[in-house]
Amino acid sequence: MPAISLKGQTMPESPIRKLAPFAEAAKFQGKEVFHLNIGQPDIKTPPEAIEAVRKADLDVLSYSPSEGFASYRKALAAYYAKNGIHINSEDLIVTTGGSEAILFAMGAICDPGDEVIIPEPFYANYNGFSINAGVHVVPVTAQIEDGFALPPIEDFEALITPNTRAIMICNPGNPTGYLYKPSELEALRDLVIKHDLYLIADEVYREFAYDDNFHQSILNLEGLQENAIVIDSVSKRYSMCGARIGCVISRNSALNATMLKFAQARLSPPTMAQIAAEAALEVDPSYYEEVKAEYTRRRDILVDGLNSIEGVFCPKPAGAFYVIAQLPVDNAERFAQWLLSAFSHDNKTLMVAPAEGFYATPGMGQTQVRLAYVLEQEKLVQCVELMRLALQEYPGTHY
Amino acid sequence: MPAISLKGQTMPESPIRKLAPFAEAAKFQGKEVFHLNIGQPDIKTPPEAIEAVRKADLDVLSYSPSEGFASYRKALAAYYAKNGIHINSEDLIVTTGGSEAILFAMGAICDPGDEVIIPEPFYANYNGFSINAGVHVVPVTAQIEDGFALPPIEDFEALITPNTRAIMICNPGNPTGYLYKPSELEALRDLVIKHDLYLIADEVYREFAYDDNFHQSILNLEGLQENAIVIDSVSKRYSMCGARIGCVISRNSALNATMLKFAQARLSPPTMAQIAAEAALEVDPSYYEEVKAEYTRRRDILVDGLNSIEGVFCPKPAGAFYVIAQLPVDNAERFAQWLLSAFSHDNKTLMVAPAEGFYATPGMGQTQVRLAYVLEQEKLVQCVELMRLALQEYPGTHY
Repeated sequence: MPAISLKGQTMPESPIRKLAPFAEAAKFQGKEVFHLNIGQPDIKTPPEAIEAVRKADLDVLSYSPSEGFASYRKALAAYYAKNGIHINSEDLIVTTGGSEAILFAMGAICDPGDEVIIPEPFYANYNGFSINAGVHVVPVTAQIEDGFALPPIEDFEALITPNTRAIMICNPGNPTGYLYKPSELEALRDLVIKHDLYLIADEVYREFAYDDNFHQSILNLEGLQENAIVIDSVSKRYSMCGARIGCVISRNSALNATMLKFAQARLSPPTMAQIAAEAALEVDPSYYEEVKAEYTRRRDILVDGLNSIEGVFCPKPAGAFYVIAQLPVDNAERFAQWLLSAFSHDNKTLMVAPAEGFYATPGMGQTQVRLAYVLEQEKLVQCVELMRLALQEYPGTHY
Repeated sequence: MPAISLKGQTMPESPIRKLAPFAEAAKFQGKEVFHLNIGQPDIKTPPEAIEAVRKADLDVLSYSPSEGFASYRKALAAYYAKNGIHINSEDLIVTTGGSEAILFAMGAICDPGDEVIIPEPFYANYNGFSINAGVHVVPVTAQIEDGFALPPIEDFEALITPNTRAIMICNPGNPTGYLYKPSELEALRDLVIKHDLYLIADEVYREFAYDDNFHQSILNLEGLQENAIVIDSVSKRYSMCGARIGCVISRNSALNATMLKFAQARLSPPTMAQIAAEAALEVDPSYYEEVKAEYTRRRDILVDGLNSIEGVFCPKPAGAFYVIAQLPVDNAERFAQWLLSAFSHDNKTLMVAPAEGFYATPGMGQTQVRLAYVLEQEKLVQCVELMRLALQEYPGTHY
């Protein structure tokens, strides 16, 4: 058999899918499995988005421009302006999901062997994209005790080498839900300017900032004109993960010209999904308000519930719809597997994502899990109860 | 300003877009520009494909599985069976266009520094994908005099090094339209088996085989179980380039497992477009027959017309909807630019793609252009006439 690439072999399995065969088996046995492992919102896509595709005149489903439809780019610039972020439509390239935005950004700034510093735990797919681009992820560990706040800026600076190209954050964070404070972002800004690096921010959860907290975009930090790259996506904002529409934003025109080459090589982003995404921008602001209110209640049910369980510690983050919880177990992956294969209550069980896969440092996060609160409140109440019962029953629980 | 990656800088501009600013200027002056430069078919997308999306129940536009919807994969396997290609639905991963299929294949078999041998001229974006993956394209020149038949197999073998991972072909070919003969495919088969390489075939133009010629898939070559990788896409087959749905096929399960990791890192292919593509598989075979008959007539008008012009040589290929023509000009790129900026007849002109960008060997193809016959017959008649007049008028023409 011809060889498979080394990088292909070292690409880690997604932590949210790792236990999929056990979930299949559990369902095959007739168990109801509550999926806390994956961030697929159950919130409805704005009907106007779907309706726009239904009404569109699509005789020939042709390529869009590689950078995206001009009308959609303009509408996006207006959306950002409404959010206090002032960019030109030329500053953004429409991508096939936030995933492709990361590929373009990584591809345009990194050569094989280059390094990107990322606070861990981080969105596991950053690993895949990095390995794909031959880039090394250099982790800086954030602490669960601090609610996963930005690690001391000195920890970042100590890791900068001549190969460092960027610092990358997710704000609000997947998998932590942490919303960075302006002072944290300013510290990152000063550091990247000092060392002439890029600051990449994945801001796909922008609207998901709770408790009157305000999301600050790195595009509004002074002095980052050439250095700021924002990854964005409509997936979570409008509960349209399947559209696969995102964008990459930068005011650095040389960088944009290079990212455009990557965009041209793949021809164009999906046509129908762009139509849907453009229409979604028209939704009434009350849509977010309802969604935010709903997620706030869900977060409170899940986090307060978890913290009421003996031995569980779960910081209450201010953004996104994920939390990382520390469990009183020997090993979170073993526990997660046990939940699916050996546990049930009223024929129901939980699927959770072991947090280890969100860390790059070996051995970290082994007793933590990531939970997405994308289920209805009533189901989350059941999830908390299942977790309580499971921890009582699991042989590897120790208080 | 922070540095831009070397590979980003060396990524070549797309030859079909290189002259876009000149085309814009021509249109601004009020000229009608016939686009022979880009393979965007004007044939209608099967209405049932669009209708399926209109009718679909899409309350939450959620992720599909990373490997694509199970129903679509099964329907695809049935489509291949109808085409005499017998695979399981597990042998294919649904991708975001043929572009992503190439990325997954390249990513899964190549590490930076590895080499892929490709007959030139070749689809220009293979360059972009290779540079992205840190892979070197090693060209073997096919000759216009032979109609771009497969170069002697010894030419391939002479280029194999310990870093060679694959030989890649496009069959029928973009940009040449050449349809490989079974004997040519068998020679490639024997060579890749001898050297334990992959054979990658981009077969997106499968149905576009004219004059009673038959397209042979490498999936039907004996002995290639572990070595054959097919790139496919619905873009051209159903005139739905904007859907961005393709797939990558292999019977090598270890390879598929690795490609799946790449697929999981980007989460999923577009949902609505998969619904459209699945419905497109239901089109009546008469759809292809009509499309093929139309393209055959278009090819004949274009190729016969071009060959009737003094000094022009254009092989008549048996597949796809592209031709490469040799022009009696000093430089094809200069001529193409002149067509847009200095020439017009009845306020009309042509846009063609200089062929140089389809070659990897410096200096090759400088007097050749690639033409896509994706315009109505009546327009192609005008295109031939415009070419005749332009060559008479162009200062750099020499017979």
